[in-house]
Amino acid sequence: MKILVTGFDPFGGEKVNPAFEVIKKLKDNIEGAEIVKLQVPTAFYSSVNKTVEKIEEIKPDVVLMIGQAGGRFDVTVERIAINLDDARIPDNEGNQPIDKLVDEEGLTAYFATLPIKAIVNRIKEKNIPASVSNSAGTYVCNHLMYGVLNHIYKNKLNIKAGFIHIPFLLEQVLNKPNVPAMTLDSMVTAIESAIEVIARNEEEVKVIGGVIC
Amino acid sequence: MKILVTGFDPFGGEKVNPAFEVIKKLKDNIEGAEIVKLQVPTAFYSSVNKTVEKIEEIKPDVVLMIGQAGGRFDVTVERIAINLDDARIPDNEGNQPIDKLVDEEGLTAYFATLPIKAIVNRIKEKNIPASVSNSAGTYVCNHLMYGVLNHIYKNKLNIKAGFIHIPFLLEQVLNKPNVPAMTLDSMVTAIESAIEVIARNEEEVKVIGGVIC
Amino acid sequence: MKILVTGFDPFGGEKVNPAFEVIKKLKDNIEGAEIVKLQVPTAFYSSVNKTVEKIEEIKPDVVLMIGQAGGRFDVTVERIAINLDDARIPDNEGNQPIDKLVDEEGLTAYFATLPIKAIVNRIKEKNIPASVSNSAGTYVCNHLMYGVLNHIYKNKLNIKAGFIHIPFLLEQVLNKPNVPAMTLDSMVTAIESAIEVIARNEEEVKVIGGVIC
Amino acid sequence: MKILVTGFDPFGGEKVNPAFEVIKKLKDNIEGAEIVKLQVPTAFYSSVNKTVEKIEEIKPDVVLMIGQAGGRFDVTVERIAINLDDARIPDNEGNQPIDKLVDEEGLTAYFATLPIKAIVNRIKEKNIPASVSNSAGTYVCNHLMYGVLNHIYKNKLNIKAGFIHIPFLLEQVLNKPNVPAMTLDSMVTAIESAIEVIARNEEEVKVIGGVIC
Repeated sequence: MKILVTGFDPFGGEKVNPAFEVIKKLKDNIEGAEIVKLQVPTAFYSSVNKTVEKIEEIKPDVVLMIGQAGGRFDVTVERIAINLDDARIPDNEGNQPIDKLVDEEGLTAYFATLPIKAIVNRIKEKNIPASVSNSAGTYVCNHLMYGVLNHIYKNKLNIKAGFIHIPFLLEQVLNKPNVPAMTLDSMVTAIESAIEVIARNEEEVKVIGGVIC
Repeated sequence: MKILVTGFDPFGGEKVNPAFEVIKKLKDNIEGAEIVKLQVPTAFYSSVNKTVEKIEEIKPDVVLMIGQAGGRFDVTVERIAINLDDARIPDNEGNQPIDKLVDEEGLTAYFATLPIKAIVNRIKEKNIPASVSNSAGTYVCNHLMYGVLNHIYKNKLNIKAGFIHIPFLLEQVLNKPNVPAMTLDSMVTAIESAIEVIARNEEEVKVIGGVIC
Repeated sequence: MKILVTGFDPFGGEKVNPAFEVIKKLKDNIEGAEIVKLQVPTAFYSSVNKTVEKIEEIKPDVVLMIGQAGGRFDVTVERIAINLDDARIPDNEGNQPIDKLVDEEGLTAYFATLPIKAIVNRIKEKNIPASVSNSAGTYVCNHLMYGVLNHIYKNKLNIKAGFIHIPFLLEQVLNKPNVPAMTLDSMVTAIESAIEVIARNEEEVKVIGGVIC
Repeated sequence: MKILVTGFDPFGGEKVNPAFEVIKKLKDNIEGAEIVKLQVPTAFYSSVNKTVEKIEEIKPDVVLMIGQAGGRFDVTVERIAINLDDARIPDNEGNQPIDKLVDEEGLTAYFATLPIKAIVNRIKEKNIPASVSNSAGTYVCNHLMYGVLNHIYKNKLNIKAGFIHIPFLLEQVLNKPNVPAMTLDSMVTAIESAIEVIARNEEEVKVIGGVIC
């Protein structure tokens, strides 16, 4: 099995992006699966372009995208990507789409095609807090997740794909009171645990879910 | 114009549901629009059934659904409903669907068809905190929002619809430290402001949006 | 009975200070007690000087000080003032003491001499969230509370004194996501409830207290 | 130099207390200082008794007390202990003092006699979030801190003492959404960094402090 793992470069004034810091530390082979690592720009259009190019080049079985969700407390496995860009700040290439569709001819949303609750469970078994998230936001992360799932759907590719958000690194919150953070080691363990579930082709589990509202 | 406004009965151990408390206090006519109020059960299937019956009976121009999102800080106008039920606790009729589609033949998601940012702006002009939300969760609120938008879509009805979440009432958090809440008066003002925007047929505004991730 | 109630002017970039907004709205006579209102500067030394001058002028039975604690969720009745100034930003007169004693010859701390739990209970009976706080911080609020209690102690005055913190007003958090706030009306009700307890000379109650640590 | 480091056993339904888990992992000698480790019960009166007995037995130069403050985001170095017990739940020996003085003949409060800001700075240099706290609460942690500082003061002992609170461990929050936590390794690094500052007899630094209110 071949797994493409993507991570963003830094944005929003931060000096590092834990997403790519994590990826750099991943093993190259996990449970027999070959791990191909790709740094993508924190930019709406080129993040998708670069990932799609790599998909065409290496023809992976799975695309696992990693991004930062500063302010979240735990590792969150995204359930769904929506057909909407709505940017509070410009991306690294100056784009700031507001209330625009990602793809004017795309579906309204796509569910992740990875076993998200099995992944959450495995991460928690390693004593790292994790949960399912029902929104990847409306910035570059959601855009990339939507873009990749949309590309796979439109081209009828036999590729599974999903997105995992990681919180701030400890070093990013030293002067931000009451903002949650995590060590890089915990993040690496979480992502490697997720990849184990994927590499072993584990099935989704139907366990009781998330937050009420 | 005729606007159907729905609110849930209490659930999850709470004695009141601010959603229906708010509705009871709404004026019967706002900016020329007739307001029809409907209490719906906090139950997956009967909430949709009851609302659809009322839609067929009174043939409204707009359906505005109100629900409680305990733990949120402000009034949140939902952008999208997704085709998924995932219940952490049973509803008031004992249903607890886990990772099930709302409608096996429905679209993956529907966007609200109300001017959500114009509504957010108007509420904030009244000095009440409000924002766009990208997830109505996976419990009864999302189910009702999805169910109503799905019914409208499938039957090609000329009805606009959307969902607004309100936080806890002050009285609900007296013994819960560090949980945000709002007065009933602020909630009523917020919902009446939303209805003003709808009743005046105001257009959506393209303003800079929500939280990054 | 004569009660001196103080409130600060705005600071830290805020346009209003709910502390004085509240005071302006208080009734002039509550349960037979005469209410004397005093705006004090958000400044370490002159806030105490101005309050002490007023104490000498009107000889109150009680001094109730009101301040803003942005970020807190509820109305907090302070239990203790400590002999320490430690300012993260300059006050309105440019003073920024760091790790300095309020009074080099003062005690380490003074407890409030008001029935703090009776006050908390009364406020909650009015459906407004309230709790006892064990720290008034190390900025101007704590300085004023310490300064007044220290003045009373050193001069053996027969005056009771205490401090109540109120959260942000709704209008202050319109563009601050996930920051708690309260309406002015709720704040006024809370402070008038506190004054009722004081004016009636109610005794302290021994009820189970606050947060663990 | 001899440093007595105390940590509590588990309480409040938790299975572990990170305080003692941390202590077990500390090196026995840090920067030339001998580290003596003591587990103390989460109990008002016996925690002080046991610590005072050990002080008399081993005659340490410093007493560093470690406790858990579940819900806090970072490592917090306590500035002050107050003469008050106010327990929301009973301790492990069934005591639940409400609004009682720790010592009827003691001072109102004692400042820690360690260089708290130098300690905070050193911990942050290791990329671990830390800050000064102005309240150790009113439960067993504050009681022990007060009790030890009071014992030292009354007996004119030449011993320095202070208290550091650590957050929940990751494993403690796996099923608690939106509660901050930290790895054991980060906590051990934080406490060893604090001990380095103490062992080297470093002086306090006057840097800009904490949160405003």
